[in-house]
Amino acid sequence: MNIDVITLFPDFFTSGLQSGLLGRALANAIASVNLVNPRDFTVDKHHRVDDIPYGGGVGMVLKPEPIFAAVNSLPRLPHSQVILLTPQGSPLTQTTLQDLATHYQQLILICGHYEGFDERIRYLADREISLGDFVLTCGEIPALALINGVVRLLPGTVGKTESLKAESFEEGLLDYPQYTRPAVFQDWEVPDILRSGNHQLIAQWRRDQQIQRTQKRRRDLWEKWSSETSSDQAES
Amino acid sequence: MNIDVITLFPDFFTSGLQSGLLGRALANAIASVNLVNPRDFTVDKHHRVDDIPYGGGVGMVLKPEPIFAAVNSLPRLPHSQVILLTPQGSPLTQTTLQDLATHYQQLILICGHYEGFDERIRYLADREISLGDFVLTCGEIPALALINGVVRLLPGTVGKTESLKAESFEEGLLDYPQYTRPAVFQDWEVPDILRSGNHQLIAQWRRDQQIQRTQKRRRDLWEKWSSETSSDQAES
Repeated sequence: MNIDVITLFPDFFTSGLQSGLLGRALANAIASVNLVNPRDFTVDKHHRVDDIPYGGGVGMVLKPEPIFAAVNSLPRLPHSQVILLTPQGSPLTQTTLQDLATHYQQLILICGHYEGFDERIRYLADREISLGDFVLTCGEIPALALINGVVRLLPGTVGKTESLKAESFEEGLLDYPQYTRPAVFQDWEVPDILRSGNHQLIAQWRRDQQIQRTQKRRRDLWEKWSSETSSDQAES
Repeated sequence: MNIDVITLFPDFFTSGLQSGLLGRALANAIASVNLVNPRDFTVDKHHRVDDIPYGGGVGMVLKPEPIFAAVNSLPRLPHSQVILLTPQGSPLTQTTLQDLATHYQQLILICGHYEGFDERIRYLADREISLGDFVLTCGEIPALALINGVVRLLPGTVGKTESLKAESFEEGLLDYPQYTRPAVFQDWEVPDILRSGNHQLIAQWRRDQQIQRTQKRRRDLWEKWSSETSSDQAES
């Protein structure tokens, strides 16, 4: 997977791409990240990347030319997607991460700008993705989240395929409670069932916990999961 | 605002906290970030922070003791919140960021672990926050997003208070389209109205665009906004 990031702040990414499991995956060439600064594609002597908004208002707006020039400078693989990171995009989901990890060889990520960008930059993008319903100063954090979530799903990043399956959202439910030693910590005990050695009961308990937790904490996810589960049963 | 981050990967944060508007805000002491590694609070000779799960399964689970010791080592200000970053938490929203930026002097962020953490760690947390319905390898990216979104709202980070107001989600609608020079770029023209100089018409156009865009792209947000707007009108 080749990932190109169009960013005014390439330095932002230095440590985030070197750390932890993502850092190891990139060091092992499971994916590569190429940082491209639109400022290098300006043609005026001041290297301006933004300008005042038409129609008035505060804040500066990212100009279209340097972004187009930066994206158009990149070699393109057959299966590529240009993704604009903006609060106006579709909220990022696990399904989107799986789609990107499975179907594309190249992702070109355009980081937004905290004050806004020229509307015509949207014409470059195959899709627009939002990290969620909140505002950050930059699109670099959403880009890093997307890179992390996609690279995590590529073969070789997580040691065993099974570790991916047990986690949240892979099937629309929250994760079950996990415990490790000590068996008693500050009067809080690990549930007996997890120490019973009965794997069938443990699997059932974990499943029940997933359903109960999702129902209690995320009614929206639980309703979606319930309706999908009952329609699966009706079909079978 | 004092922000303490409990993280096994303090190096992750180096460049992300130095870059852009957030970097400038921290350099100007608008907020401070203190990174605390739970590994420094282990008492065994191997400095173990995780262990195998009770009940079986793949992956390692973060142990409770080093996290409790790290959190309990921190001096506490009167208005503080301990926040656990986990996909099982409440999805982060702009309302949450505003609450945290307005009402607290100290945030203690506990970064999750990609394979899971001991359930008893939850007892430390005043609240649990999720970045969204997707899985990342670590809680460091959600912590960085939360820091960025909170510090952005603190007085002095963004130059003019007005820049904060015009943005997405502050009132439940997506942002309007923005344009800057050139007036014509690759046959795409800036809408005439934005060059009309009629500020009342421009304000109305922007408002209409916000409503239309939200309705088209985010039916869920639009329905929420419509019902709140109509109940406001009924009350007045």
